[in-house]
Amino acid sequence: MTDRIEIVRRIMDSNQRVAAANRALLDENGVYGINVMASPGAGKTSVIMETLRRLPSNVQTGVIEGDTAPVTIDADKIAALGFPAVQINTGGDCHLDAVMVEMALKKLALDELNLIIVENVGNLICPASFELGTHANIVIASIPEGDDKPYKYPNIYRGLDVLILNKTDLLPYIDFRMDYFKQGIEMLNPGLKIFLVSCKTGEGFDAWIDWLTATLPKKA
Amino acid sequence: MTDRIEIVRRIMDSNQRVAAANRALLDENGVYGINVMASPGAGKTSVIMETLRRLPSNVQTGVIEGDTAPVTIDADKIAALGFPAVQINTGGDCHLDAVMVEMALKKLALDELNLIIVENVGNLICPASFELGTHANIVIASIPEGDDKPYKYPNIYRGLDVLILNKTDLLPYIDFRMDYFKQGIEMLNPGLKIFLVSCKTGEGFDAWIDWLTATLPKKA
Repeated sequence: MTDRIEIVRRIMDSNQRVAAANRALLDENGVYGINVMASPGAGKTSVIMETLRRLPSNVQTGVIEGDTAPVTIDADKIAALGFPAVQINTGGDCHLDAVMVEMALKKLALDELNLIIVENVGNLICPASFELGTHANIVIASIPEGDDKPYKYPNIYRGLDVLILNKTDLLPYIDFRMDYFKQGIEMLNPGLKIFLVSCKTGEGFDAWIDWLTATLPKKA
Repeated sequence: MTDRIEIVRRIMDSNQRVAAANRALLDENGVYGINVMASPGAGKTSVIMETLRRLPSNVQTGVIEGDTAPVTIDADKIAALGFPAVQINTGGDCHLDAVMVEMALKKLALDELNLIIVENVGNLICPASFELGTHANIVIASIPEGDDKPYKYPNIYRGLDVLILNKTDLLPYIDFRMDYFKQGIEMLNPGLKIFLVSCKTGEGFDAWIDWLTATLPKKA
């Protein structure tokens, strides 16, 4: 087992190095990067699309779409909105890593962008262990997933900068104890910024867009 | 990278061997085993609990609960219903493996049971690669997860014996193209047995319980 541990350590070290290089490249170009993680079906692509529609027109955004299978469903949706999108197929892997993002960044005109949104593979476990070099880690949770998820997937909630809780339009039809959910988050990540949104009604998007726009660096 | 590939192969081989031993142990004891996989929040525990409530009283069932974090939320719920439940904490791993199940089986009185339900870690990617030694692989999908999941997580849908599509009570509030979903399944796994259920209304459980009861081996 020593061999295995040694190899895992080497993989993590080299991921860390490439992540740092990705971050430097984004910073040089004045681009803010966000890593969007979630369970399958929480609404990553829907929240990203609604965000793209609502961002001020002076914010130039590129999207990197990660999928475990060789499908382009999500990248096609983004491209149809008129935004540059690059698809990464992880070949069965349960997360993106820094090298995959490095390859995708080469396909985007970084000097023309302010923001890069990376949609990670749908998974609440593996993506938590791999830095990509982005500036903020965001999880999209959703009401129908249930209020106990912070307790069951603590690692991903611990490393977060922003939480978006999606599908609030379904609250009337689902038993979701908001206090219990927020208590779980508070235990792992005190003071975490939380936005409650619904892609269906548009609720909550103003606050999220205001925060994101204010956070973007001014481009020279 | 050769080292890494060699080690991965050794891990998979030994998992396979232990899975075969688990299967032999279940067969010796006349116990049917099912491996329940799903995305986080699809309703694995709710479907298992509803199944336990509805199974005929002559079916003796044990439950093995897998979680990535050291929590006993699900095992406690099962135990509260009066069924033997064993908790496995994977220590951050994104799936159960055959050795974990072997350890859990030792804690159950197999000679007194007809059925073992294993609740895997909430994840649509990793569990697909690890046989546990159970007789049937079941995925619980859910309406709010969306109709494109078979296209995005093909490996887990390919190896399935039964699919339970949960939360049908939410169909009126969600755009879910049933034809598109079923077409994706049919492409990967032609003729797959599908049960549409709702834990909230009880819809569909009769058919699922009838199928499960008819499938169980007669105990000597």
